[in-house]
Amino acid sequence: MSYFDAASAAPLHPVARQALAASLDEGWADPARLYREGRRARLLLDAAREASAEAVGCRPDELVFTASGTRAVHSGIAGLLAGRRRTGRHLIVSSVEHSSVLHAAQACEAGGGTVTRVPVSRAGAVDAGAYEEALRPDTALACLQSANHEVGTVQPVAEVAAVCRAAGVPLLVDAAQSLGWGPVEGDWSALTASAHKWGGPPGVGLLVVRKGVRFAPQGPADERESGRAAGFENIPAIVAAAASLRAVRAEAAEEAVRLRELTERIRARVPELVPDVEVVGDPVRRLPGIVTFSCLYVDGESLLHELDRAGFSVSSGSSCTSSTLTPSHVLTAMGVLSEGNVRVSLPPGTPAEEVDRFLSVLPGAVAGVREKLGAPSAVRPAAHGEQDALVVDALGKLCPLPVIELAKVIGDVPVGATVRVLSDDEAARWDIPAWCQMREQEYVGEEPANRGAAYVVRRLT
Amino acid sequence: MSYFDAASAAPLHPVARQALAASLDEGWADPARLYREGRRARLLLDAAREASAEAVGCRPDELVFTASGTRAVHSGIAGLLAGRRRTGRHLIVSSVEHSSVLHAAQACEAGGGTVTRVPVSRAGAVDAGAYEEALRPDTALACLQSANHEVGTVQPVAEVAAVCRAAGVPLLVDAAQSLGWGPVEGDWSALTASAHKWGGPPGVGLLVVRKGVRFAPQGPADERESGRAAGFENIPAIVAAAASLRAVRAEAAEEAVRLRELTERIRARVPELVPDVEVVGDPVRRLPGIVTFSCLYVDGESLLHELDRAGFSVSSGSSCTSSTLTPSHVLTAMGVLSEGNVRVSLPPGTPAEEVDRFLSVLPGAVAGVREKLGAPSAVRPAAHGEQDALVVDALGKLCPLPVIELAKVIGDVPVGATVRVLSDDEAARWDIPAWCQMREQEYVGEEPANRGAAYVVRRLT
Repeated sequence: MSYFDAASAAPLHPVARQALAASLDEGWADPARLYREGRRARLLLDAAREASAEAVGCRPDELVFTASGTRAVHSGIAGLLAGRRRTGRHLIVSSVEHSSVLHAAQACEAGGGTVTRVPVSRAGAVDAGAYEEALRPDTALACLQSANHEVGTVQPVAEVAAVCRAAGVPLLVDAAQSLGWGPVEGDWSALTASAHKWGGPPGVGLLVVRKGVRFAPQGPADERESGRAAGFENIPAIVAAAASLRAVRAEAAEEAVRLRELTERIRARVPELVPDVEVVGDPVRRLPGIVTFSCLYVDGESLLHELDRAGFSVSSGSSCTSSTLTPSHVLTAMGVLSEGNVRVSLPPGTPAEEVDRFLSVLPGAVAGVREKLGAPSAVRPAAHGEQDALVVDALGKLCPLPVIELAKVIGDVPVGATVRVLSDDEAARWDIPAWCQMREQEYVGEEPANRGAAYVVRRLT
Repeated sequence: MSYFDAASAAPLHPVARQALAASLDEGWADPARLYREGRRARLLLDAAREASAEAVGCRPDELVFTASGTRAVHSGIAGLLAGRRRTGRHLIVSSVEHSSVLHAAQACEAGGGTVTRVPVSRAGAVDAGAYEEALRPDTALACLQSANHEVGTVQPVAEVAAVCRAAGVPLLVDAAQSLGWGPVEGDWSALTASAHKWGGPPGVGLLVVRKGVRFAPQGPADERESGRAAGFENIPAIVAAAASLRAVRAEAAEEAVRLRELTERIRARVPELVPDVEVVGDPVRRLPGIVTFSCLYVDGESLLHELDRAGFSVSSGSSCTSSTLTPSHVLTAMGVLSEGNVRVSLPPGTPAEEVDRFLSVLPGAVAGVREKLGAPSAVRPAAHGEQDALVVDALGKLCPLPVIELAKVIGDVPVGATVRVLSDDEAARWDIPAWCQMREQEYVGEEPANRGAAYVVRRLT
């Protein structure tokens, strides 16, 4: 098996495993107690805090351990918003944040606050100017990921932090995807991370709040972790998290070069090997281990299943996964194709041979899915002067079928004429424009219909 | 070293350690993913949920795993209160709940709700009738621990559950101290527990909500654990928690008998070996492994330090611990002495010899602390007809010094006359009446004073 989904969860680093085993004997007691076992637990906790703070680039007393990265995000955003309630209740986030940030933003709105979602480029990056424009007198907090979890695009955190700092607004950085590779640059105010993303154990998140940043913990009081993370400390896991962070950092510079070459290989070869593919995300400012592409006329779940059968564990932000029926918010915010989406995220240590084998397996897997779905193999030559206003009825058909139906008839549409695709699948709203862009056809727009909507496409070539 | 603080955190059970090590290899991936590693993680999570549900006596889909017992309590109370907001915002708790419950109750009050704190007997038990009286038309929720964490007293959960059920009010049971010993009886609606209390790893709590009980999760949305526990699941720890719960249950019946004999030995011998001691908590309806006593004229922190030097790790709910300067809320609610308090909570497997050695060490440790504090060794014979209204100035002196000063002068007070103790230490408010009860003197009451208060005591014997 080749596990290529490190962006979801990295396999446990050997150092994490050793540290966890060792600290189960020393770190199980209550660090608030004064007796020997308690003092030993406290020493381990303090040492882990110092090591983690050094890796983050903060003071130990600015860092608390939470039970997960999601919990760090939820508690961090809630505490920072409450700390600046007098200023206002306006929150700025990028439109491609992790769901934990977007859910916290929804909670802010449900509580009477307002949220601005800053758009991104087609490469998935925000612009510092857009954050500057979003700032208001009542802005309590801005949030920005250090790098995107679905496409790997690195965000201009230092520039956004400078813009926020100038306005006196704190910036929280979700560093979940990047902290293993290095500290987050710039003058940020708060930072969150998750140990199982860098090879640490599950059950440990980091919440860092710089001295001088107003923070009011929400929820019932609890004296542990400076009142910012309720519940008994999971010291064995915390020790393992800190030890593995140091270990992955020691290997980061060399491993980043190696993985970047492997993902570059995928970026370059996939469009050569597989027709009708769009590689997404910034080709240069990106994380070393992540590469994401979308395949026309493919549903992501079937493709993942084929790849799993071939021994590859990858994930998908596609609209066609079983757990979420809406398209990936990241891909739709970027305006790129979301159907047949595959994210490859290589764990450190991935052998080059596994990547080569993936490249040898992928074309057949995509072709197999397309064949089952009856996808068009090529567009027929354009015929001029035929009927206008052709209508494709794709009602009741789920992604990627509406796009497949469109592709099947486009050859019958005269150049300059339009075709209407009737669809009640939400994904069509993003995938039909994305298809037009890939195929160099014109997406005219969306029209109301009795059921779903009519998506109007004009044939250009 | 003898570790006698299992009620804070139990050492890891060998089965927990084995299960944790095994599941680190199998359970690190995201159980929401469809590939092989994700499916394996899902299988482990499902099996752990079934095993835990069986131990609790509930359906697997009624149980979610949280990151700690505290988190289970906080999320459980918040979700149950919100689920019944239409009914009202009145919460009933006992006055001897764990701080996590009391902090959640404070959060309820801060949010506009009202809280009734049901008193307890001198043994630390609530009365079902008191819960019945506390019920109101706007009562949203009642909470009761299965057994007390400081004194071991078992609560009448089944009776209280019946009273609540009759009124249509859900009852949440905090079973943190008892779940390792057996399921909680009675028709409760929700239950919380914490794995590290039964020998499981830290980082795992249980939240059980019976089908049909209204529950509205609070905080930002998250799809994991039925939306009731945000954040990536800590599957290795969850597997270890479930496996160790089954293991301790298999040993529970036999070990309960053995530990009960050992704690009974402490209950009986300590008052014989150490003068001026009060053993607290119910002598019969109690947990097998917990025994608690308070020593007059002793500060708990010094005594814990002496016992630690002698190789015993115990804890104290005393007013004199460093982390909290107020007396234990449990002991004050019971109306018993809080000074010089020691809680012995034996982990399963504690050898009888360790308990005997504790009994041999304790008298010297107490005598040593008393000597340093200048505690009275005996009350002088009563002299009649001397001056009334003697005043002891204990201002600026912390527990146990005000009681020591009182004891020193009581011999000078004529029988029938009173003495006033001036004190600005909060603990005196509970400790002077408790001393009177132990010494069979009359506690007349508290009078205002320029600083602190005057506590009036009449000599009877």
